[in-house]
Amino acid sequence: MVYSEVSHLECSKCKAKYEHNQVLNLCKCGKPLFVKYYLDNLANEWNKDSLKNREPSLWRYHELLPIVHKENVVSLGEGMTPLLRMDQMGSELHINDFYLKDESIIPSGTFKSRGAAVGVSKAKELGIQTIAMPTNGNAGASWAAYATRAGIKTKIVMPESAPTIPRNECFMTDADLYLVDGLISDAGQIIGKAVQKYDWFDASTLKEPYRIEGKKTMGLEVLEQLNWEIPDVILYPAGGGVGVIGIYKAILELQEIGWITEKLPRFVVVQSDGCAPIVRAWEENKRESDFWEDAETVAFGITVPKALGDFLVLDILYNTDGCAMAISDDDMLKEQKHLAAMEGIYICPEGATTIAATRKLRENGWIKQNDKVVAINTGSGIKYPEIVESKIPMLQKDEEL
Amino acid sequence: MVYSEVSHLECSKCKAKYEHNQVLNLCKCGKPLFVKYYLDNLANEWNKDSLKNREPSLWRYHELLPIVHKENVVSLGEGMTPLLRMDQMGSELHINDFYLKDESIIPSGTFKSRGAAVGVSKAKELGIQTIAMPTNGNAGASWAAYATRAGIKTKIVMPESAPTIPRNECFMTDADLYLVDGLISDAGQIIGKAVQKYDWFDASTLKEPYRIEGKKTMGLEVLEQLNWEIPDVILYPAGGGVGVIGIYKAILELQEIGWITEKLPRFVVVQSDGCAPIVRAWEENKRESDFWEDAETVAFGITVPKALGDFLVLDILYNTDGCAMAISDDDMLKEQKHLAAMEGIYICPEGATTIAATRKLRENGWIKQNDKVVAINTGSGIKYPEIVESKIPMLQKDEEL
Repeated sequence: MVYSEVSHLECSKCKAKYEHNQVLNLCKCGKPLFVKYYLDNLANEWNKDSLKNREPSLWRYHELLPIVHKENVVSLGEGMTPLLRMDQMGSELHINDFYLKDESIIPSGTFKSRGAAVGVSKAKELGIQTIAMPTNGNAGASWAAYATRAGIKTKIVMPESAPTIPRNECFMTDADLYLVDGLISDAGQIIGKAVQKYDWFDASTLKEPYRIEGKKTMGLEVLEQLNWEIPDVILYPAGGGVGVIGIYKAILELQEIGWITEKLPRFVVVQSDGCAPIVRAWEENKRESDFWEDAETVAFGITVPKALGDFLVLDILYNTDGCAMAISDDDMLKEQKHLAAMEGIYICPEGATTIAATRKLRENGWIKQNDKVVAINTGSGIKYPEIVESKIPMLQKDEEL
Repeated sequence: MVYSEVSHLECSKCKAKYEHNQVLNLCKCGKPLFVKYYLDNLANEWNKDSLKNREPSLWRYHELLPIVHKENVVSLGEGMTPLLRMDQMGSELHINDFYLKDESIIPSGTFKSRGAAVGVSKAKELGIQTIAMPTNGNAGASWAAYATRAGIKTKIVMPESAPTIPRNECFMTDADLYLVDGLISDAGQIIGKAVQKYDWFDASTLKEPYRIEGKKTMGLEVLEQLNWEIPDVILYPAGGGVGVIGIYKAILELQEIGWITEKLPRFVVVQSDGCAPIVRAWEENKRESDFWEDAETVAFGITVPKALGDFLVLDILYNTDGCAMAISDDDMLKEQKHLAAMEGIYICPEGATTIAATRKLRENGWIKQNDKVVAINTGSGIKYPEIVESKIPMLQKDEEL
């Protein structure tokens, strides 16, 4: 078998087709492109047993990833993050099988490294030399690390108010980093102009077709970790929404190659109530979202006022009988602390929105006790020291406890 | 086969034997205890192929770990961290096979979680209800997380000058945390008195016999990842030295069960020149170290003025034709930045000492071009925002690049 069964790219909206061995951003119609595979070949020639001896990284699914030549793979050891049972929390919420897909345990401590690993590997394969992107922090940190490992330059613009640690990561891994006195949408404007002016590749969310494939591996892993049994509910904290788009794509592809049944999980998209454009659109039964004015939340990673892939996320909610929910900063921070104190798992505020949403959806009966529920934690709590308010008693050397 | 082939505990110095199903700290003679296994059984009944279908965590080696009943395993998804090739750095240093065992990719972002996972699991198995320990930060963070997951209380004393993030982790995961105006040795004094006064289990480094077994799994993994070929050189940044003791123990045990050849790697123990008691002892050809006065270094995790297991670490250096080396703060910080900018891997300052030592040992010919070299990075650079000094240009919304 070949290393990758990639066949071509296809517009997620107008279905126009493109060859995969060229540098591409959006479709001519302005919408994101999806990578397509020879799923027939995979259905005939690939089987689950082939995974058994493979390394525990996202590259174990290389047939369903877009890198044609193995030597172009750029890796920092990403993927096969743990799927942790939350038995204490499950007991509190009366959910028999409650899991956390913990994307803390990955290079740079967030799921952004999945998109970066695959996106940068493909960029390397296509001969791209400079990557440019706006970021709320973590995506830039991941792309800078992988690009540096690949010998590719990065130009990154980040809001000044973004957390310190991703800024440090960009600096340490040698990105050309700039701060902007504004939001990620302002950073996006600056990058948009720059990629017109210079010969840089625009790796903004969904303007770059390959990061979805990286995020897709979260779905492949969850399915493999559940022994190919499809969960009933998957909760995801959405900014740009690439993760949920990727996980849904993984499920459809696995169904087409016959590894899983036709059942679909109900997807729950969770946002902060300080920036909830997709939730508002879903509540109004719309197919696209409107720009969210004056976005503000501690969950910096999901502060995205208008996502390019909003229509895809909303489609998933409508197709799977899913729902969308906004969580207050106060509730997500309480839930973050509560989970850490209960299960020892210190997740990021974005991830904590999914626990808060599970609580509400269990209370109103939307989630049932027998539902198998998977919450996606997109990153580690340790990356956000700014939001911790602790008071610790101080002892002198000769004092006793 | 049984889940664990643990047989008993044995003093690392006087060889006194103890049953394993009881709460133990040090030997009566005051020295650390080692866990022993029925290696004959393992030689006869266990084989490498049995690992193939196991989960990518340190529990894949459960036969060589001390937890008797699987249901006592407390896990946050630790182990099988990546062994990354450093081709750029290898090329610069003229080393053909240069690897980093990257312990960033683990719960809490440091290798301390290996010791905590196994130590807390065994504490749970033995019915311990409260654990107490001094820490320079990361060990406390890991033990607090695992103990909370196990339903065990933790009492932790940490130097006030320890980094912020581990403090946050202890706070978030509900440890009873105290700061002390002093060093880890002062914290140790306070804990020492407290465990006399209360019914708390003293989980100080090497006073607790099971964390070595957790650290041992770094060695098991490196060997498995190198397809059971023994590297020529292993470099390790030593504070308490448990990691190097564990890795060496792993190699001896694998040799005894016949999975690897009799060759030994040359071990290199690296310390900061602001706290280098083991390096000084090795240079003076001593079997034990003296207390290092006025210890000070940015590599907080290896600021240990006098390690309980110093004699074991020195034995390893003498037994394996190894060596010890002290690195300045300036050199380790430069190497940390250089590696991040070259390979995209953002390691901790402690880990960076091993890269600096490799450079010096290559220059003086102690490491040869054809040596297979493994450097242990004990944790993630992102946990140390305090030591990053970056200057990032600032843009206004309407500016261009």
